[in-house]
Amino acid sequence: KDKEGAAADRVVVPVVRMQTGEVAESSVVAVLPVCRAEEREVEVEEAPWECAGVGDFGVVEAEKGWGRWVVLPGWEPVAGLKRGGVAVAFKNARVLPGRAKKWNREEAILVVADRGRKEVVTDDNFYLVVGGGNGSVEEGLKVERGLELKEIGVKESLGTVVLVVRPPREEYDDQLSDEDWE
Amino acid sequence: KDKEGAAADRVVVPVVRMQTGEVAESSVVAVLPVCRAEEREVEVEEAPWECAGVGDFGVVEAEKGWGRWVVLPGWEPVAGLKRGGVAVAFKNARVLPGRAKKWNREEAILVVADRGRKEVVTDDNFYLVVGGGNGSVEEGLKVERGLELKEIGVKESLGTVVLVVRPPREEYDDQLSDEDWE
Repeated sequence: KDKEGAAADRVVVPVVRMQTGEVAESSVVAVLPVCRAEEREVEVEEAPWECAGVGDFGVVEAEKGWGRWVVLPGWEPVAGLKRGGVAVAFKNARVLPGRAKKWNREEAILVVADRGRKEVVTDDNFYLVVGGGNGSVEEGLKVERGLELKEIGVKESLGTVVLVVRPPREEYDDQLSDEDWE
Repeated sequence: KDKEGAAADRVVVPVVRMQTGEVAESSVVAVLPVCRAEEREVEVEEAPWECAGVGDFGVVEAEKGWGRWVVLPGWEPVAGLKRGGVAVAFKNARVLPGRAKKWNREEAILVVADRGRKEVVTDDNFYLVVGGGNGSVEEGLKVERGLELKEIGVKESLGTVVLVVRPPREEYDDQLSDEDWE
């Protein structure tokens, strides 16, 4: 099942390691509802879609109440989300396809997905899908390459992944380069 | 506990004018539930109390869902709120006591209050209270000095005001000095 790299020749999903205090570095911040991966598709489907900041103070006005939120720096892929953006909190990076698995397995990640783009279109894009219960992932959701999904006939996902966020780390920066994905 | 009393002669409520992009200037941000003043005490009493950021990404985990949120720079009075903090959105500054009324009346303000401190203790602190329907304020809530409240026998408020936030303004900075409050 771990057939990564077979055909993918280019990674189109940015991965960033958040720096301590980095919310500070942008003049724009994004506020996204957070879903827990262990709740499978339930929270992803329930979380509010409209989270734009309005008015003088950029007050986020969601169309429904939600309890978990995260503030991210205005990274381009996130800032570009008009509506339908969601951040899924995973306890570790094992849910990612390919070589990303070699990351510290105990490191939490946030996967930002666009629920407005559910269709599986691009081979080397990442998509958020239900884990499938085959025992390969202990959490309810996982991230899969478009190619792998197409091969098993899956045409619709919960959303296209636009960004993978790794937590701040003070000691050293082991940010992966693009090659690590191929 | 009420030891400052009558002798208080200085204003203890900070007023800040937010700068464009200022969320950027602090390594810490605060996320607070927002209530609309026109909903009177209803939203202030209903908004979640627990809004601390937890884990690697500082995900805000409120004890209940809420639709309106604001991200503020980690100004000291706001960062000091442990729980019970709330931001009330007013359409203009007429709801403030004293000379603050001379501010641009059409300028929206955010009033950050601590619902954990409802008791009216200090003469020159500001407290969030229900407008009273006497026609003096068109909105449901207003801000009153402790002294004024004591004079009419009001001992409990909806919360102690810890900060008044004015919106960003590019053209000029008309931040009031302390004297303007006295």
